[in-house]
Amino acid sequence: MRTENAHWLWYPGDFERYHALKQNFSRVERGVGWPAFWKSEGFRQRVVFRRSYTLTADAVFTVHAVTGAVGYVQLDGGKHPFGSPVPCPAGTHRVDVHIGCVSCVPSIFIEGDIIRSDGGWLVEDYDADPVPAAYNRYFADPGRDPSDWAYTERVYEPVSVEAVNGGVLWSFETELTAALEVVGDGTPTVYLGESRAEALDPVGCYDRCAPDPVTRRCPRQALRYAFIPDCAVGDYAVRAIHQYVDIPVIAQFESDDAELNRIFAVAAHTFSLCCGAFMLDGIKRDKWIWGGDAYQSLFVNRYLTADAALERRTLIALSPSEPVRTHVNTIVDYSLLWLLSVEAHCDSYGDASFARSMWPSMRGLMALCLSQRDERGFIVGRERDWVFVDWADFDRDGPLCAEQMLLAESLRVMARFAPDSERTAYERARAALLTAIETHYWDEEKGAYIDAFTSGRRNVTRHANIFAILFGIADDDRCRRLVDTVLHNDDVPAITTPYFRFFELEALCRLGYLDEVMAALRSYWGGMLRLGAVTFWEEYDPAKPLEEQYEMYGDPFGKSLCHAWAASPIYLLARYFVGVRPLVPGGAEYEVKPQTRFFRTLDCVFPMGGRRVRVRLRDGALTVEDAGPIHATEQSDLRPASHDEAR
Amino acid sequence: MRTENAHWLWYPGDFERYHALKQNFSRVERGVGWPAFWKSEGFRQRVVFRRSYTLTADAVFTVHAVTGAVGYVQLDGGKHPFGSPVPCPAGTHRVDVHIGCVSCVPSIFIEGDIIRSDGGWLVEDYDADPVPAAYNRYFADPGRDPSDWAYTERVYEPVSVEAVNGGVLWSFETELTAALEVVGDGTPTVYLGESRAEALDPVGCYDRCAPDPVTRRCPRQALRYAFIPDCAVGDYAVRAIHQYVDIPVIAQFESDDAELNRIFAVAAHTFSLCCGAFMLDGIKRDKWIWGGDAYQSLFVNRYLTADAALERRTLIALSPSEPVRTHVNTIVDYSLLWLLSVEAHCDSYGDASFARSMWPSMRGLMALCLSQRDERGFIVGRERDWVFVDWADFDRDGPLCAEQMLLAESLRVMARFAPDSERTAYERARAALLTAIETHYWDEEKGAYIDAFTSGRRNVTRHANIFAILFGIADDDRCRRLVDTVLHNDDVPAITTPYFRFFELEALCRLGYLDEVMAALRSYWGGMLRLGAVTFWEEYDPAKPLEEQYEMYGDPFGKSLCHAWAASPIYLLARYFVGVRPLVPGGAEYEVKPQTRFFRTLDCVFPMGGRRVRVRLRDGALTVEDAGPIHATEQSDLRPASHDEAR
Repeated sequence: MRTENAHWLWYPGDFERYHALKQNFSRVERGVGWPAFWKSEGFRQRVVFRRSYTLTADAVFTVHAVTGAVGYVQLDGGKHPFGSPVPCPAGTHRVDVHIGCVSCVPSIFIEGDIIRSDGGWLVEDYDADPVPAAYNRYFADPGRDPSDWAYTERVYEPVSVEAVNGGVLWSFETELTAALEVVGDGTPTVYLGESRAEALDPVGCYDRCAPDPVTRRCPRQALRYAFIPDCAVGDYAVRAIHQYVDIPVIAQFESDDAELNRIFAVAAHTFSLCCGAFMLDGIKRDKWIWGGDAYQSLFVNRYLTADAALERRTLIALSPSEPVRTHVNTIVDYSLLWLLSVEAHCDSYGDASFARSMWPSMRGLMALCLSQRDERGFIVGRERDWVFVDWADFDRDGPLCAEQMLLAESLRVMARFAPDSERTAYERARAALLTAIETHYWDEEKGAYIDAFTSGRRNVTRHANIFAILFGIADDDRCRRLVDTVLHNDDVPAITTPYFRFFELEALCRLGYLDEVMAALRSYWGGMLRLGAVTFWEEYDPAKPLEEQYEMYGDPFGKSLCHAWAASPIYLLARYFVGVRPLVPGGAEYEVKPQTRFFRTLDCVFPMGGRRVRVRLRDGALTVEDAGPIHATEQSDLRPASHDEAR
Repeated sequence: MRTENAHWLWYPGDFERYHALKQNFSRVERGVGWPAFWKSEGFRQRVVFRRSYTLTADAVFTVHAVTGAVGYVQLDGGKHPFGSPVPCPAGTHRVDVHIGCVSCVPSIFIEGDIIRSDGGWLVEDYDADPVPAAYNRYFADPGRDPSDWAYTERVYEPVSVEAVNGGVLWSFETELTAALEVVGDGTPTVYLGESRAEALDPVGCYDRCAPDPVTRRCPRQALRYAFIPDCAVGDYAVRAIHQYVDIPVIAQFESDDAELNRIFAVAAHTFSLCCGAFMLDGIKRDKWIWGGDAYQSLFVNRYLTADAALERRTLIALSPSEPVRTHVNTIVDYSLLWLLSVEAHCDSYGDASFARSMWPSMRGLMALCLSQRDERGFIVGRERDWVFVDWADFDRDGPLCAEQMLLAESLRVMARFAPDSERTAYERARAALLTAIETHYWDEEKGAYIDAFTSGRRNVTRHANIFAILFGIADDDRCRRLVDTVLHNDDVPAITTPYFRFFELEALCRLGYLDEVMAALRSYWGGMLRLGAVTFWEEYDPAKPLEEQYEMYGDPFGKSLCHAWAASPIYLLARYFVGVRPLVPGGAEYEVKPQTRFFRTLDCVFPMGGRRVRVRLRDGALTVEDAGPIHATEQSDLRPASHDEAR
């Protein structure tokens, strides 16, 4: 029987929530599991798939169900078990597939010439009207269990094997997410490291593993170095089975500047390692789906892979269910950034349907935010909320200005996607909030937005001022003034995290300070390269020597050396330096305006509007050409499969 | 380490929801799984258990987690793995147990002298304030996996082995929920029957099984007869491993009337078979948790086992989560009966805390019901709602009277348990509804409530009139009038289902027609006994011979021969004939008023107010004595374990 154009089917969102649970529970620190500390949304256990067919000839089909499921196939009222062919005579028929599964997502795959699990199925959960069934492009084979994310594998042999400290150290050419294969006697403990120093520190290293006695494989973990103590070279044969999701990189950046080329390549490698089932923060740590990190990753991903499905999986995994009582990752600003993320995704791919599908979560989350406003209309954290914004020395007395900026921007997004009947309320709330921000946070004397007004300290940090620039809260004149009073003012403490540095560099780009941004690329990212980085780090202090770079959060090897938010040069170079910029949501119209003073030659490709745009600069001549469509398998699984058979 | 007074712990409701999923997915019909067709509520996947201790001496404890869980024990900020002893020095400490589990309820058991999983733990789900952790009295051993309901077992040898139809039939003394053990060659298909006729019909019988090749056991199923075709006596050794939850029967009914004694005993046996993890409708079919069935079972259980925990498990399994968008079992009247069930449970055990814990579900469910009112204030079904009331020939044009009666009664319950600020709204809604019922449904000429008023047909059935009596909607005069115009009026179609017959007999008892009820006991339940019943059936038509009794729902063996709602004689005999009746919620004060004209001797015990009340009648003398407390292990798991250690 045919299985082309057939996929495993489930209720929309359940697959993402299920795998997000597994992802967020996968962190291990020194042998101890560390599940993410926020509300974890579950999946539906009982659904029914429904469809009607009008057949011109007899047909036969077989319904496969995920392991552990119970249920039956109902054809015109007769019941048939899963896994057996069901004959269906010509004529009009109704097919219902009833399925319940306690431990994983109730999913089905239907093999058949005509009746098969393609894009025409509806699914119902006995709670709401039926909706189109969802699927994932990686699960298009009845033998591929959708409760287990099956990774693509690639074997890496070590690039060096070295006797050291009484044991053996294996080194790989780059960092991997790999199941280490250890062939030899027994099941030795293997100490893993993103750095050589980490692997050689059996006490301090973040994680370790041991091979399964039968398969000889260790669990999938982040590693570049592996150390086994008390053994000699030759005792064990070790190689790394890199396990990844095959998300093709569309972008290419080649210029006459080798350092920039290398920054782009390492950023692309870093970002690809951090993206699989979801967009993660890092691959050693946390391996969690964070809303703030995901928001920034959208901007990178738009120019690197243009994989819309990856983004949707991530944003669905972060989406709160009704009733919404807590914030995304428990962080108030991550709730607001999730709302901005929905818009960013829709704009990247010109597809507002995603916002419509997320609307119940958006409305519920905004209702929670609005319910937390004080008497002046400012959002404040509740007892167990985390008001983060950044690791910075804010004046945290009373409501924080940066948080209000995010709320105002989120209200704009809500108004944009709201049904007509609900729009005005969001617009009014935003207008009132902007007025209150101006009244309470704008300090004319300092020419800056202050952190907080209740303490009277009038403390200025960069964060709120950067948001005012990015979100258009400050007008052009004020933006220019903020450059002097804040961005170029050394008395205002520097941003210390790459997370917020992304927003600052974006603001500088917007205002045209490209030389400053280019210098930052060379010093910060170029600096990591000069220390031998093969992936970009969670944080980097140019003033410290290599051996002091690994510590973070009070843990000697706590720093992640492969962190998604460090991939921002991809976005900055593509958007502002090569100057490829969409003019309409989705990018069907776009502008290419390279900053030619930075380059003698360029040969770049970026995804835009579903196509590859090739930009070449040579001998002062600029060429822009359409290099063809992004191949279907590189596209999102946005569109349902063929609907062309009779229904 | 000590484990006394320690239990497996979880977030309240999750254990019940998880096992309810398994229960409602356990129905099998002719080899095909049939999961219940309603919204199935899931469980939390990520929680944290929290407690502080002040220790006067050093202590050590070990946290066990359910298989498949990940997490850690945090003691004053340090992380420790599950399964390893954690030393804790004297002093004040905070212990947090973080746990995530995708496929089953995240549960922990803590072994230790002082720090252990007793009643003092709080649990948090990152969505609401921490609440006391929940547990179940059957899971008080670290080796007992709470994701698997471990049944008590009792071996039944067959009472006959008979060569018939070319095969062998094994018969057991009564119906069982058993794993059949089949020792012999191969794994033959075994045809099961609640009746001999069913087991001997390999095509028509409702279910079959085959032994596991290693354990030789078949899955747990309802059976009294087992048939293996094409074999000879001696080829297989068959016995039944009855698997049940040990819920001790408190009640005893012995009188000089052998028929009544037998009715009570068979009813008790029937009901006990139907009660385990939950109160089910039947043991062959549906094996589902239905709200209407559960409501009636509460009245029986109150007099038979007084096991409050069984009731709470059942009512929690039926409770809807927010946002409430669908009805209990999809049935509007079952939603309303669930609300009445909460009150019935609280009254049985004098414990209003259960209503408080259910209040979010109650409020959400009532809000849904009130949202479905038409312009006159009457509740009507939506497109996918099932307005059931009973299998009867109602005039279903427009809103149905019986449904309004249930809504009015439910509004009384809501007003009773509502917080002060919400009470008046329910009271007003009820008053308005009662007025509208009187206006639109009371037919003075017929002296009865009519089914519906929109058609103009003025059709009278018994159902609404019975509810009017039971819920006090009709005053005493009208109740007396309804006896003549409805209950004793042969022109009004008779109730045909035992489900609604329960309500009718209760109404007749309330109004004092005990002779009529006694006659019904002897004809209906006595009639089943005369046909050889060893358990009471889902339905019984005295006019039909035995061989025509097994068909139901168009299925030749579709009828359940062991059905909980057939156990109502327990309640009727205890409450109205032996006359044991609580005077206050919980039964700390009660009345004993036997209808002595029906008995020469009585020796009965019923649970009341947490104690055993023994009622004896001999030689015209009535004795009532307190026969001691219901033993602790027979009690509910209502109270938390000891709190006496320092916290």
